[in-house]
Amino acid sequence: MHPFTDKRSESVSALGEVRLLDKIRDWLGSAAPAEPYGMGDDCAILPRGKAARLITIDPVVYGGHFNDTMSPRATAQKLLKRNLSDLAAMGGLPTAAVLALTLEPRTSLRWLAGFYRALADCARHYAVPIVGGDITASTVPGHLSASLTLLGNPAHGSRTLTRRGAQAGDSIYVTGQLGNTLGTGHHYRFTPRLAEGAWLACQRAVRSMIDISDGLAKDLKSLQSPGLEAEILAEKLPLRRGANPRSAICDGEDYELIFTLAAKARRSDFERRWRAAFPKTSLTRLGQFVLAGTRSEAALNLANYHGYEHL
Amino acid sequence: MHPFTDKRSESVSALGEVRLLDKIRDWLGSAAPAEPYGMGDDCAILPRGKAARLITIDPVVYGGHFNDTMSPRATAQKLLKRNLSDLAAMGGLPTAAVLALTLEPRTSLRWLAGFYRALADCARHYAVPIVGGDITASTVPGHLSASLTLLGNPAHGSRTLTRRGAQAGDSIYVTGQLGNTLGTGHHYRFTPRLAEGAWLACQRAVRSMIDISDGLAKDLKSLQSPGLEAEILAEKLPLRRGANPRSAICDGEDYELIFTLAAKARRSDFERRWRAAFPKTSLTRLGQFVLAGTRSEAALNLANYHGYEHL
Repeated sequence: MHPFTDKRSESVSALGEVRLLDKIRDWLGSAAPAEPYGMGDDCAILPRGKAARLITIDPVVYGGHFNDTMSPRATAQKLLKRNLSDLAAMGGLPTAAVLALTLEPRTSLRWLAGFYRALADCARHYAVPIVGGDITASTVPGHLSASLTLLGNPAHGSRTLTRRGAQAGDSIYVTGQLGNTLGTGHHYRFTPRLAEGAWLACQRAVRSMIDISDGLAKDLKSLQSPGLEAEILAEKLPLRRGANPRSAICDGEDYELIFTLAAKARRSDFERRWRAAFPKTSLTRLGQFVLAGTRSEAALNLANYHGYEHL
Repeated sequence: MHPFTDKRSESVSALGEVRLLDKIRDWLGSAAPAEPYGMGDDCAILPRGKAARLITIDPVVYGGHFNDTMSPRATAQKLLKRNLSDLAAMGGLPTAAVLALTLEPRTSLRWLAGFYRALADCARHYAVPIVGGDITASTVPGHLSASLTLLGNPAHGSRTLTRRGAQAGDSIYVTGQLGNTLGTGHHYRFTPRLAEGAWLACQRAVRSMIDISDGLAKDLKSLQSPGLEAEILAEKLPLRRGANPRSAICDGEDYELIFTLAAKARRSDFERRWRAAFPKTSLTRLGQFVLAGTRSEAALNLANYHGYEHL
């Protein structure tokens, strides 16, 4: 759906700021908590005992992350879920979110209503209260973006997983399938791996983790400690419907988790416990990290593949 | 300074994402904490004991909050300080910040270097670690915006002040001077009233507080409980250099605090303690809240004045 309108009466500028904020309160409904924990003050306040230690911020920009072929509903879901995926990749669970909107005055109220109602539905589904935000006019025609800051905490008080910690011999695992994320609509239909991430952070033998947003080749490099390289086989790649190996390696927006399991861990035992915990989420061992220069000849040379470049 | 360049070699696109992130680490220097508490992972992690309960988010947009006449230094300071002012208005002190940048590929590296270096200086000055963020390409020429999410906590574990709580007879006070914020450069030269806000939140007789970002007339309405109206006198307005009463009432970006003091509090005692605590920050009693319809004829009719309208 096109987000702008030339009919002033159908645009945000007809409403003005105060009435727009009232509308947004309506649209968010129970996804926005009551005072003093909700919108409408200089800061949002989290209840005692809900203070947050994990923060991530990710936007959606018109023409980049969404366009006229995507519904405002899909756009809102994508915005919240890509932040949830970042939280999942640390082993965190969400606490609250704030939303900063930059929009040109021609933005259509119909688009915005669809966006906020879907954001509210998605926020309720994942139990993420929308506690505040900001609305600013864009000075450039055609600009519409929403930036969501997501707050959270380590799941069950356990540790967080970062991108660092992989050692030579550690296995490389990936959840779900890879590739063809645009063709299948996966780039907004995905389910953030929150439960899986939280479970993995409780496993001592899991040493590092990241979610795939810019493509396997690029994001795997972020797990690669100095002096190591990934040794993975093309035939191991779990392909999404319609995906080929190149798309599985290069496409962004898989929003699956890649993590490393210590070499000394008992893989069969770990994989059995995974299947018991997540019978519906497939898990694939892609290969392992090896000392740089010792990769087997059959393995992929990831230097030949590029991920999503933001600039 | 104009933030864009047509010489590709001087733009962010020439650098690419990975090298740009390295540059940003350089520019931020000690304002960005070391791993695991800094940039470079899916989420930022706050140290144990630093979990945040207060959150605010505010952007600066090119063509709105800054333009070619403002330096990147002033722009960065304004961005952080306007968020600090929101925190001050709740009686909070800062814990950390994350920054989301949306920029078109033509953005000049020189502008960006000036922006980040100044942000780092300002962040060190106010002891706000920049713990993470996001960079996204804008799809629309001429768009450049930075959205900062500031995290904090109530000062000294004390209560927070919100916009609610004013009662009939409560005094209305304002810090500093008002008006002519554009002419004097105050809109980016201001000092956020962090210490004052924290002190005020410790005073039981102070019932509500807000900072002036959209003008006294508009922001004072946010303190006005149902059934009340403000009774303030034009001659009481503390005018900034070159300001007239209308500009003191309507201009935005004063970033001063307005708060209400309970009617039963001993004003002279309160004002004496203020002067002892903040000898350099003037404090003015503008008037009081009265029951709607009982305002004295000499008082300003704030319905005749408008503040800054964002849309």
